[in-house]
Amino acid sequence: MKESDILIIGAGPAGLFAIFQAGNINLRCNVIDSLPQPGGQLAEIYPKKPIYDIPGFPEIKAGDLIKNLLKQSEPFKPQFILGERAETLEKSDDNKWIVTTNKGTILKASVVVIAGGLGCFEPKKPDLAELTIYEDKGVDYIVKNPEKYDNKNIVIAGGGDSALDWAIELSKNAKSVTLVHRRPVFRASDASVSRIFEIQDSGKATVILNSEVTKLIGIDKLEKLEISNFETNEKFLKTTDYFIPLFGLSPKLGPVKNWGLNFTKDLILVNPENMETNINGIYAIGDISHYPSKLRLIISGFYEATKMAHSAYKYIFPEKNHTIKYSTIQGIKPLS
Amino acid sequence: MKESDILIIGAGPAGLFAIFQAGNINLRCNVIDSLPQPGGQLAEIYPKKPIYDIPGFPEIKAGDLIKNLLKQSEPFKPQFILGERAETLEKSDDNKWIVTTNKGTILKASVVVIAGGLGCFEPKKPDLAELTIYEDKGVDYIVKNPEKYDNKNIVIAGGGDSALDWAIELSKNAKSVTLVHRRPVFRASDASVSRIFEIQDSGKATVILNSEVTKLIGIDKLEKLEISNFETNEKFLKTTDYFIPLFGLSPKLGPVKNWGLNFTKDLILVNPENMETNINGIYAIGDISHYPSKLRLIISGFYEATKMAHSAYKYIFPEKNHTIKYSTIQGIKPLS
Repeated sequence: MKESDILIIGAGPAGLFAIFQAGNINLRCNVIDSLPQPGGQLAEIYPKKPIYDIPGFPEIKAGDLIKNLLKQSEPFKPQFILGERAETLEKSDDNKWIVTTNKGTILKASVVVIAGGLGCFEPKKPDLAELTIYEDKGVDYIVKNPEKYDNKNIVIAGGGDSALDWAIELSKNAKSVTLVHRRPVFRASDASVSRIFEIQDSGKATVILNSEVTKLIGIDKLEKLEISNFETNEKFLKTTDYFIPLFGLSPKLGPVKNWGLNFTKDLILVNPENMETNINGIYAIGDISHYPSKLRLIISGFYEATKMAHSAYKYIFPEKNHTIKYSTIQGIKPLS
Repeated sequence: MKESDILIIGAGPAGLFAIFQAGNINLRCNVIDSLPQPGGQLAEIYPKKPIYDIPGFPEIKAGDLIKNLLKQSEPFKPQFILGERAETLEKSDDNKWIVTTNKGTILKASVVVIAGGLGCFEPKKPDLAELTIYEDKGVDYIVKNPEKYDNKNIVIAGGGDSALDWAIELSKNAKSVTLVHRRPVFRASDASVSRIFEIQDSGKATVILNSEVTKLIGIDKLEKLEISNFETNEKFLKTTDYFIPLFGLSPKLGPVKNWGLNFTKDLILVNPENMETNINGIYAIGDISHYPSKLRLIISGFYEATKMAHSAYKYIFPEKNHTIKYSTIQGIKPLS
């Protein structure tokens, strides 16, 4: 059994900064994540994408932000339990929490923090019978390595920010980019919509609306696909190297859903003053937590991690007089 | 008259990040600060001190953080009005705000954001008749350039974090450091108190408690000072190059105090959901703002700047449908 003051479920940016803020007030953290590496979406889905709204970084790649956060948390020696999913939550005899993972690892902590982002996310897949045949043979659900698509013909399906975003980004180096969307309008930011049409005007992308990919064709790998227009009922074949359906991620919250927490949709309701859920000693931070006026931005997760740590300290040591310690004054004291 | 969407009073870290977050949703900012350069305390008082609790920076010097924040806000072309203090606030005929500085500069904006930190701060000075004679001749109230004290004899007075902090820091390179405190115990963090006594044990600093500097002596510059013990009534002279009384800063909020805002002590009460004060269209962020469970940390200022920007957008454009735009998706669009 692995024991710590705080058990963090989710190693995304909020969870990683929580290790630092907790460690800075002498609380030790263990961290579970269902992904094989820390970093959540930033490491898994868009490690090479620049982020512009982290204070003090005019631009930083998502993967680099994760590296920095890991380095920042290092002095506090977190133990990572990766590739495992938190399954059950129980109270121990000494009024602590016991969490067991799907692989049977047992973790004990005074406080449990759910920093689960979108949950153990899975891409939403189009309803195409032959889809699984071409997985990793031309069909990708996630853009991990943009370079992979350099000088290739790509068909992207989807109408949200992610689809437009990648169509814009990949059009820089791909041989051709075709963006197929079921509806007549995109549900993405105005700026992205303007941009994709600009790119189409410059000849570097093709936008096909009211349409859907209806068939995948190829011998050993994807070679062509069929695109069908809903309005005209026309169908045509298109030669392509890759088909990337970007229909979003479905947040598979998984077993956490059954822990007795208060939810609104798939978001955990917390007290914005301290990030505590309806269960004493269980906190939620980052994208998975919700309260009035919540902004779903990384900066919110950082702030919520900070609030949580100070509240958890008071929860664990109710008798101690807790004051904020400024790192500028005392520096960092590593945990042993 | 200089006009902008938002007028920010205070160019510390919260104010600077507010320029970015506002600019990112197309709101233009002007910024007033009473100091001659942007950065607030971080640039003025401790530019060379490392900060450890900014997310993504395992360590960053305060001055470098300010440089980064300035660079991050640059695309949004803020206009800085430096070395001027906001004096009066009035409503214009078109329901905007008019702020006039002590130098007569007139600024107009839809929204005013007070990001005033500790206010236009002034060091608290000891009650010594001859003090002003030696100002800049051995008496310093602020440590700007730590190198200045290398291989010098220094007497620091004070018992709070700032005094201990600088005694610890300067003891690394000074010839001698003497820390004089009126009371028998320090009111600083446990870690700092332990450290200063460790340093005394190693012979690199001397701690003198229950005592006060009672006289300054020197011809053209400070040469000696008298230290008096309250308990024993003993007095003795000490040769020194510098006397640095660090009794804290008194937050001279100044004219903002008379703008009709709700205060608790010298802090402006805001709605934590959006950082709005009791006056519609006037916001307060960073150390100067207060709400239940407030943590006075830089990370709070960053978060508050973000909340403020999104709320200000809705205040300025009540008819527009405001959704969060992710910088990862659309990048940064500079204001012209």
